[in-house]
Amino acid sequence: MAKPFVLSVKAIIRDSNHRILVIRRSAGSKNNAGRWDFPGGKVDPGETLDAALIREIREETGLAVELETVLGAAESDLPDRKVAYLLIRARVLDGRVALSDEHDDSAWLAPDELSEADLSPQFRSFARSLAPVR
Amino acid sequence: MAKPFVLSVKAIIRDSNHRILVIRRSAGSKNNAGRWDFPGGKVDPGETLDAALIREIREETGLAVELETVLGAAESDLPDRKVAYLLIRARVLDGRVALSDEHDDSAWLAPDELSEADLSPQFRSFARSLAPVR
Repeated sequence: MAKPFVLSVKAIIRDSNHRILVIRRSAGSKNNAGRWDFPGGKVDPGETLDAALIREIREETGLAVELETVLGAAESDLPDRKVAYLLIRARVLDGRVALSDEHDDSAWLAPDELSEADLSPQFRSFARSLAPVR
Repeated sequence: MAKPFVLSVKAIIRDSNHRILVIRRSAGSKNNAGRWDFPGGKVDPGETLDAALIREIREETGLAVELETVLGAAESDLPDRKVAYLLIRARVLDGRVALSDEHDDSAWLAPDELSEADLSPQFRSFARSLAPVR
């Protein structure tokens, strides 16, 4: 029997200097504690993917955003399920970063910094694809 | 107001010679009539993405499949909505290709043939990423 797939949506949010917002998973996180992550999360049953992502970003970062375009995909193979990630560029409409208990730090990283950060492993290949070729 | 995003899941199904299954959209199709497409389609409200993809593949091709791994993403920007595509590798468990009315031909294409085929435009960049570098 194949594992079920669960959909998660994550946002790539840039500031005016093209740096990308990452948030650090709290020490008590079940997976990837202490690692950097993109804002976002699971789509609840019956919820549309844009409503889910806008909700998660507001809960996790306090930011109001508008979704722009699909940038990529990723996958995490967990013991009981696979998580399929859609990575979507989002634009800040309003707000300042204010974290929930799920995260303990935030940073705006340039693409080359992002590709070297201690990101959750499922996003490392995507992060490298954003960095300039050297 | 940003356009809503709709999720569609598409399957990359290979035969034992690593050729990939594509199906041709019927002349009466609303979008991309006569172009090659991957099997799959929209996720209905409340449906999981794996149930949706397995259902669509069975309806469109007669094949029973098991989903394996996320290979990529794509987007289609329509007048009233954006479609976010997840491209997932699937393995045939049983069946032979038998098309529905929505498609009028099928083909198994090698990656370099796929990258030169008249695919629906939103999948061309992904198709090129599968072809060997020359």
